[in-house]
Amino acid sequence: MSPAPVVKPLLATVLGERQERPPVWIMRQAGRYLPEYRAIREKVGSFLELCYSPDLATEVTLQPLRRFDLDAAILFSDILVIPDALGQTVSFETGEGPRLEPLHPDGLGRLRPDGFLDHLAPVLETVSRIRSAIAPDKTLIGFCGSPWTVATYMIGGRGSSDQAAARLFALRHPDAFAQLMDILVEASIAYLVTQFRAGADVVQLFESWALNLDELAFAAQVIEPNRRIVEGVRRQIPNAPIIGFPRGAAGMIAPYAAVTGVNVVGIDYATPVGFADAALPKTLGVQGNLDPLRLVAGGVQMEKRVEEIIAGFAGRPHIFNLGHGIVPETPIEHVELLVATVKGV
Amino acid sequence: MSPAPVVKPLLATVLGERQERPPVWIMRQAGRYLPEYRAIREKVGSFLELCYSPDLATEVTLQPLRRFDLDAAILFSDILVIPDALGQTVSFETGEGPRLEPLHPDGLGRLRPDGFLDHLAPVLETVSRIRSAIAPDKTLIGFCGSPWTVATYMIGGRGSSDQAAARLFALRHPDAFAQLMDILVEASIAYLVTQFRAGADVVQLFESWALNLDELAFAAQVIEPNRRIVEGVRRQIPNAPIIGFPRGAAGMIAPYAAVTGVNVVGIDYATPVGFADAALPKTLGVQGNLDPLRLVAGGVQMEKRVEEIIAGFAGRPHIFNLGHGIVPETPIEHVELLVATVKGV
Repeated sequence: MSPAPVVKPLLATVLGERQERPPVWIMRQAGRYLPEYRAIREKVGSFLELCYSPDLATEVTLQPLRRFDLDAAILFSDILVIPDALGQTVSFETGEGPRLEPLHPDGLGRLRPDGFLDHLAPVLETVSRIRSAIAPDKTLIGFCGSPWTVATYMIGGRGSSDQAAARLFALRHPDAFAQLMDILVEASIAYLVTQFRAGADVVQLFESWALNLDELAFAAQVIEPNRRIVEGVRRQIPNAPIIGFPRGAAGMIAPYAAVTGVNVVGIDYATPVGFADAALPKTLGVQGNLDPLRLVAGGVQMEKRVEEIIAGFAGRPHIFNLGHGIVPETPIEHVELLVATVKGV
Repeated sequence: MSPAPVVKPLLATVLGERQERPPVWIMRQAGRYLPEYRAIREKVGSFLELCYSPDLATEVTLQPLRRFDLDAAILFSDILVIPDALGQTVSFETGEGPRLEPLHPDGLGRLRPDGFLDHLAPVLETVSRIRSAIAPDKTLIGFCGSPWTVATYMIGGRGSSDQAAARLFALRHPDAFAQLMDILVEASIAYLVTQFRAGADVVQLFESWALNLDELAFAAQVIEPNRRIVEGVRRQIPNAPIIGFPRGAAGMIAPYAAVTGVNVVGIDYATPVGFADAALPKTLGVQGNLDPLRLVAGGVQMEKRVEEIIAGFAGRPHIFNLGHGIVPETPIEHVELLVATVKGV
């Protein structure tokens, strides 16, 4: 008789099985709030070098799991490895965020989808090393940036608060924009499928810049590309478990969930819990949604809010998380308190 | 017999009377997209000098009404005249946005609410000059920044994409924060009441940074202070017509409208029309919500979207507007096309 398979509570939740207390992970859990992360970051020349080093990327992925009783490891990488692997020049200036050579409407021919997966081989090696290293009850989450979010950086050349360059590109050059979305959808499908094959249990689609789009743009630039990715991945990985996180999409989470077919919708912290719960079918999973600054401030207000969120999502599969990434100034003791509160210990 | 009073279609809409075609104005309609505005702006040393010069502020207020068939003039001023009038150091660096000496939790005593209205006398003089200058069918809109939005600048010292400084201040120093809200609520009431007395027909509460707040913070920092302002103004100006614009509040527009008691809710462009229409009582007015970049791009896509918005809000009082301020690179011919499209001419 073979031993009973070990249950992964987070994966089970993604697959629709509600747990008594929600499993928990933290967006950017491997990051600058950890001194051991900063020590490794200082040793490498560039941020992308860290993403492409299986040794170091595996190490930083595992760091938060040594400190905290988290239910998942998430691949350490960046959403901009896709444009990098497509041949666009990407760099990370210290303290400045990413810089890309901005893409022009007539420059799409310079993207090289052919060598794409070869370029990402070190990331896939990292996935399989993490798979071997983590305990059997931990879920391994892979990810990519969703096409619209990645396009805002490819077109604008950097992060921006209003994504104006990409929004205008889409309005003024609809054909070139559709071609770019096609390239990114296909690249994302190929990348996520190889992540699953390398050992990922679940993947998350980060649509970090879903805000600032009107409903027509949201349907065309967010919902439809994410739907195509879900469909394309599941054609090769049947029933692939997928979390979608359309940050800032409050008024549009219902059509996002219905059309894309993701298993779990990530809820940002500005979306009220009761609102999200009413907007989504009761069988659909949710993930979220503590304000990361409540974690920075810590204490009773945080514990109280954690319990409110858990109570608010008590009727459906729920993965506890922040409603956006953890910030560098977060005290480590507050993360310990957060995890203990979620676990009810 | 006295002549029949002239109807102001925009004011009538705020008061609940739906028009066959919606009246229209444009947020930041007096601004840098107009060459005649830039010519005046170059003549004055500082932006605040322009706000405090009744001659020049009246002139720039009237400029867009000479070019376009708009239904309202909006007082030319800035949301930061309130902290300036309270004695906080405020300046505008060219191309950099506002800079304030950041307010610390122990620094509230340095604010001087007593001389507040004297400092704002030139703005009120501007209101009464605009009143005399505009045609009787035009609505004169006054405004102020809502307390939370103004506080984000007072605490952070500048604009930011996440308002982290003010959000942390509210979490860490709840008593000092409540005291600051009290000061701003009282100042806003006094300022708006004098705007009505100087000739404003309607006022708008600009809550430009209503995004990035979870539901608890939104209730305490946005809904409650705006409710107090509406109540306080109407104690002195019975039934004062008030538009509230909580930008980025999609999931929370229903409680915002119900609790504050504003006559009209401004809808940002990221909020779907059908969603807003379903979330709000049918008798409540709405204002919005074209994406300003659709106006920059212009043409058929813009005309089509304008008609969709008008059709979507056809069942209630509706003021046409952008869903955020007009941007400097907007071509003037596109504004002409917008106004003609809204008017159906």
